Amino acid sequence: MAVSGARAMNEMPGTGLADLGIVELAGLVAAGTVKAEEVTQACLARIADREPEVCAWAHLDADYALAQARALDAHRASGRPLGPLHGVPIGIKDIIDVRGLPCERGTVLDQGRRPGDDAAVVARLRAAGAVILGKTVTTELAVYAPGKTRNPHDPARTPGGSSSGSAAAVAAGMVPGALGTQTNGSVIRPASFCGVYGFKPSHDLVSRRGVLTESPIFDSIGTMARSIEDASLLADVIAGYDPADPWMRTSGPPKLLETATAEPPVRPTLAFVRTPVWDRADDDTRAGFAELCDVLGDAIDEVALPEPFDRAIDLHRTVMNADIARHFARYYDDGRDRLSARLREIIEDGRRVLAVDYILAREWVDILNGALEQIFDRYDAIVTPAAPGEAPGLEATGDPAFCTIWTYCQVPAVTVPLMVGDDGLPIGVQVVGRRGQDGRLLRTARWLAGELATHA
Amino acid sequence: MAVSGARAMNEMPGTGLADLGIVELAGLVAAGTVKAEEVTQACLARIADREPEVCAWAHLDADYALAQARALDAHRASGRPLGPLHGVPIGIKDIIDVRGLPCERGTVLDQGRRPGDDAAVVARLRAAGAVILGKTVTTELAVYAPGKTRNPHDPARTPGGSSSGSAAAVAAGMVPGALGTQTNGSVIRPASFCGVYGFKPSHDLVSRRGVLTESPIFDSIGTMARSIEDASLLADVIAGYDPADPWMRTSGPPKLLETATAEPPVRPTLAFVRTPVWDRADDDTRAGFAELCDVLGDAIDEVALPEPFDRAIDLHRTVMNADIARHFARYYDDGRDRLSARLREIIEDGRRVLAVDYILAREWVDILNGALEQIFDRYDAIVTPAAPGEAPGLEATGDPAFCTIWTYCQVPAVTVPLMVGDDGLPIGVQVVGRRGQDGRLLRTARWLAGELATHA
Repeated sequence: MAVSGARAMNEMPGTGLADLGIVELAGLVAAGTVKAEEVTQACLARIADREPEVCAWAHLDADYALAQARALDAHRASGRPLGPLHGVPIGIKDIIDVRGLPCERGTVLDQGRRPGDDAAVVARLRAAGAVILGKTVTTELAVYAPGKTRNPHDPARTPGGSSSGSAAAVAAGMVPGALGTQTNGSVIRPASFCGVYGFKPSHDLVSRRGVLTESPIFDSIGTMARSIEDASLLADVIAGYDPADPWMRTSGPPKLLETATAEPPVRPTLAFVRTPVWDRADDDTRAGFAELCDVLGDAIDEVALPEPFDRAIDLHRTVMNADIARHFARYYDDGRDRLSARLREIIEDGRRVLAVDYILAREWVDILNGALEQIFDRYDAIVTPAAPGEAPGLEATGDPAFCTIWTYCQVPAVTVPLMVGDDGLPIGVQVVGRRGQDGRLLRTARWLAGELATHA
Repeated sequence: MAVSGARAMNEMPGTGLADLGIVELAGLVAAGTVKAEEVTQACLARIADREPEVCAWAHLDADYALAQARALDAHRASGRPLGPLHGVPIGIKDIIDVRGLPCERGTVLDQGRRPGDDAAVVARLRAAGAVILGKTVTTELAVYAPGKTRNPHDPARTPGGSSSGSAAAVAAGMVPGALGTQTNGSVIRPASFCGVYGFKPSHDLVSRRGVLTESPIFDSIGTMARSIEDASLLADVIAGYDPADPWMRTSGPPKLLETATAEPPVRPTLAFVRTPVWDRADDDTRAGFAELCDVLGDAIDEVALPEPFDRAIDLHRTVMNADIARHFARYYDDGRDRLSARLREIIEDGRRVLAVDYILAREWVDILNGALEQIFDRYDAIVTPAAPGEAPGLEATGDPAFCTIWTYCQVPAVTVPLMVGDDGLPIGVQVVGRRGQDGRLLRTARWLAGELATHA
């Protein structure tokens, strides 16, 4: 086990267009150095090479992608202004609606489903000039049952879930960025297992319109990429007020890339939080965090969460299972025999939840945030595991428990591929910020990666 | 039964300061014609005269009110700018916290409770220069069990509830305006029974901070006064974004008085809606609405609500009872024997509600609003009864059913004292607007009152 320094796990052997990041590609296309079509072809070539092993894509249509790329090249040639992602291919988790592609959500019960409209985030990507490359594999209805995707670092292991295909595709260099979603640990965990950056924004930052509803109080759309900068820019593009999403607040552009790439005004201090599930952390994760604390010295303190956080996982389950029971009622009523046993159990558990317990469990979101505020008054960010350790086998998608508290509290979180486990696979360091302070979180995470790189 | 023309029920025999309205009083104080202390003394004198019969006040301390008035007079004498309610006494329902006065919420279980802070609306009233005159009687925890208040028009009858004291105090000329709250029919119904104007704003317009929580998705703070203009100005003052209330949206000042007193750009058209509870309407109410439709002619159409509205009262009860069970848990756990039987039943019913039913019942709020939007695309406002008829006896506070759909849909509603029943008591005409279009609703209601006055 070793703290690896940022990007160690991302060093792909190739150095072609498919290995470049979002910011760099957007710059090259804008400058006219490369065409959107060339970038898209490079991604398609990488997919042709790696997809038989990785199986990251649920729906991919080369013509659909290339047609967009050619139109974007024509747009550029016409001299009109370009969006910040002009010509950059992006993968979309298959619970997010894309007009022109199927959206089957990882269940046979949605086989053949073709949405008529783009989700809000997809519309924003298109307006920014992105090439919607295709739909990435999700677990069954973005819950636990695995899809076909394998971990690009070891095909005998899970890529994590539920945003399995997005994490694997980015890690394998098939696409420089992708959208995932998280209701428990579905962005952070697969990003950790696949050795990429995964960013789950504050809950009110990105519109959920056109995305499968699982548990609205927790559902968040996040970004996956191979650098903080890329994950930030992608999040800048998808963030934005949408009156159709009742969970959003009016706010201006979050300027995540701008904030993330600024120098911290003072040297940040971090709180290392073991969380109530520390006993689930693997030995190499424990050793990695001990090393990380050693390296950071007086820039990090170990901080214990107050006792009420012991209840967070139960509170999260109470709300999530009831919400899933409600929002997946039609799947259960029409085809429960074609749902996984695990999902059936969740729905059946959710159907038994009493409203008074559900209401109380939702209220605790703000109560626990009050306790977090006290930590964030003293520390720039919390540092904690993204997952118990390296990716386990293919039979499941791994344990989300290290993400649950943060999803429950609606705070922003980013995983940084800073560690390598005993089997040579990536382990992410999860950095967690104050609700609504996404840019500052990303800036602190970028600082952390830089600090560790100088010690690597 | 007769359509009475606006204000008929408000013509008090006296013509002293206590009989003037908010707008007029604020003008007189601002001009220096009268002092805040004189206005307050006039209200206190009226209270001394009528309170033994009406019993509108839960907590009244003449020194507390007069000290504010004298301070406001000193403020004016100093030449500093004045707020829009400078020197105007206002009554506050006893579930709204006022610093310096008890807030016992109509239950012995809160006996001796003295909040340390003003509710957000009270802070806004103070900033506007209002004299917080005292606390008005509420039913038990703003639900059904009556307090001591009697209808000023007939002491053998209920003033309605739960904002019993606010409606009665305004009707009796004890105070020119008062705040009430509505979770079902608690502003509109008592205002109708007492013959005053009652305005329940859109749900997201007024902060609930410092007000007893009953059912947050429905709880609304409203205004009572003796004219549309007064109810509008009072609502202008209490409206305003408060980040501490998660149900609010950022928005500028609603400018209700300005909009309400403008001429409608075109002659309004109204939709007369019987609602699914029309069979509960008394004969004089039915006759009154027939007469109202006759008088308005082609300015009003009868419109039937689509079938799903038949479920609205059940949906409202599912959410409200579960919320009450949650938010009143400590009352039930610590002192259920000191709660009314009716409230115990509501809490026990609420404890049995399943989360899935609760979630679904909340979702229907937006679904039914979608149907209402179609009506408001064609009509300026809906006109419907405020209550089944005249105020019944003192054993209960009357039937809120004519308010339930509108509270459930979070739309603004105002009751206008336009009718007189067979026993000579007031009957309100409820005018309902599109969610978020409170000013337009008030303008239409004012137009309606003017139309009927010319026919009276």
